[in-house]
Amino acid sequence: MSEPKPMFKKIALIGVGLIGSSIAHAARRKHLAEHIAGYVPRAETRARAEAACFADSLHADLAPTVANAGLVILATPIGAYAALAPQLAPHLMKGAILSDVGSVKTVVIRDVGPHVPEGVHFIPGHPVAGTEQSGPDAGFAELFDGRWCILTPPPGTDASAVERLAAFWRGCGSDVEIMEPKHHDLVLAITSHVPHLIAYNIVGTAADLETVTQSEVIKYSASGFRDFTRIAASDPTMWRDIFLNNREAVLEMLGRFNEDLAALQRAVRWGDGDALFNLFTRTRAIRRSIVQAGQDTAAPNFGRLPPGTGKT
Amino acid sequence: MSEPKPMFKKIALIGVGLIGSSIAHAARRKHLAEHIAGYVPRAETRARAEAACFADSLHADLAPTVANAGLVILATPIGAYAALAPQLAPHLMKGAILSDVGSVKTVVIRDVGPHVPEGVHFIPGHPVAGTEQSGPDAGFAELFDGRWCILTPPPGTDASAVERLAAFWRGCGSDVEIMEPKHHDLVLAITSHVPHLIAYNIVGTAADLETVTQSEVIKYSASGFRDFTRIAASDPTMWRDIFLNNREAVLEMLGRFNEDLAALQRAVRWGDGDALFNLFTRTRAIRRSIVQAGQDTAAPNFGRLPPGTGKT
Repeated sequence: MSEPKPMFKKIALIGVGLIGSSIAHAARRKHLAEHIAGYVPRAETRARAEAACFADSLHADLAPTVANAGLVILATPIGAYAALAPQLAPHLMKGAILSDVGSVKTVVIRDVGPHVPEGVHFIPGHPVAGTEQSGPDAGFAELFDGRWCILTPPPGTDASAVERLAAFWRGCGSDVEIMEPKHHDLVLAITSHVPHLIAYNIVGTAADLETVTQSEVIKYSASGFRDFTRIAASDPTMWRDIFLNNREAVLEMLGRFNEDLAALQRAVRWGDGDALFNLFTRTRAIRRSIVQAGQDTAAPNFGRLPPGTGKT
Repeated sequence: MSEPKPMFKKIALIGVGLIGSSIAHAARRKHLAEHIAGYVPRAETRARAEAACFADSLHADLAPTVANAGLVILATPIGAYAALAPQLAPHLMKGAILSDVGSVKTVVIRDVGPHVPEGVHFIPGHPVAGTEQSGPDAGFAELFDGRWCILTPPPGTDASAVERLAAFWRGCGSDVEIMEPKHHDLVLAITSHVPHLIAYNIVGTAADLETVTQSEVIKYSASGFRDFTRIAASDPTMWRDIFLNNREAVLEMLGRFNEDLAALQRAVRWGDGDALFNLFTRTRAIRRSIVQAGQDTAAPNFGRLPPGTGKT
């Protein structure tokens, strides 16, 4: 089979952390772009990105990064969008697609939308994938394989531009879904933002106890606690920005979580074994569906290797 | 090297689910017992245990299971102890050790302690290890490797019996710690019981939404939610019994979790980015300590394999 023509002559990644660098690796794997440019303002990070060898050019300035790029993807924490958008907008090529990877979509439309020049296709996106690692050396080509990428094109967006971006994500290994931005933010509040918030919270609670030492928490963490510490080790800036920018949906979902927890707490206090048993049975079925949908491994303990083996 | 003399001529496992069957596998691996007997009252479960080939004899009755056993380990859900203890007590051999594997220790002392005959060493225990799987075919020899086993001998227990049980657990791959039962229950409330409760709770909340469909929750679960579903798939009977029997410690730790969550919710509502960032930074350090202590893998995403590979 001859090498197919790449989808884009040039793509520009504004930020090359876990997601940005993984896009570069995935695009290289399937030769989706002739040239991959990365915007990395900090010299130290640029050196790390250089060493990871996923880009054709790395830049400290926005103008050369986005110049002549057919696809520009914002891949910084979402709190940086408002400052970046007006700076990069004048340098966007006519006909280019401007997208992003942020975990909140209404905010992108608010902060980036107004700066998008005539003739540029603005299509916010969100690849629902990640690990607890961050930085330009954390990326890998397989991150998006079998995961969903949600696109939230504003009404009236050019359909062929949406299809080009969708094809790019499919090339990166993803399945693509189109969604309304407000609905996206609600879905992610329950599947991602509130789970992260309560994981951060329980880890904080455990760290602050005076009756149980931190070393005890660490020693006995294999009994459940360690599962929470993984997502509570995710990038702090990225997560701060998510909570600051998806407040309404997070508070709504957190309100429901709290209501349900109050009922569960009452069941514990009053020894209502049937209520506990019924909930614990119901939740098993959801796990099974997630495994059946290919969104998690069926291997016990997530397939963790026995201690002392497989450390990276 | 010649085969060392086994520690026990016979051990009896009262219940052969994930933990009981794993003890059998681990004991076989290091030849810790000449004979491993299992008590399995249900015929269907007995057939599954038979097929898993980890026991030398399987019994529907307690008397032949524990007869002449130097070590008897209760490995049923803790709610069954109160009924089992008076039934098996008359059949215990003089000089035998009676232990268990339950996740709450004060209750064992309350429900089993009064039935222990003169001349039997009663030493409650808790191997801090497990997976979300259950049943006699879920066990494996490596489950306890590098994990802690906590023993809570009552005051005055024969020190050489405690040392024999500790040596047995070390033979199973564990490190052994001695602890006061009330303190054990507090430590496990924060490292295991409350984490399970909030995991069960968030999975329940997500299942009950009307604004986000269950199929959306499943599709986008890789964004964090799926980590919670693993422990929320653990055995319902076992977990009901834990919450019914460690009420005080669970409610205390849950109270602290709720207080902290209220503060965090306030930080989200008022947009207090510094408070969020500070917590999210602190929690990273705990993850690092857990990995350094060998209690979890350093591999991203728990070392989950890419979708479509490594399914068991």
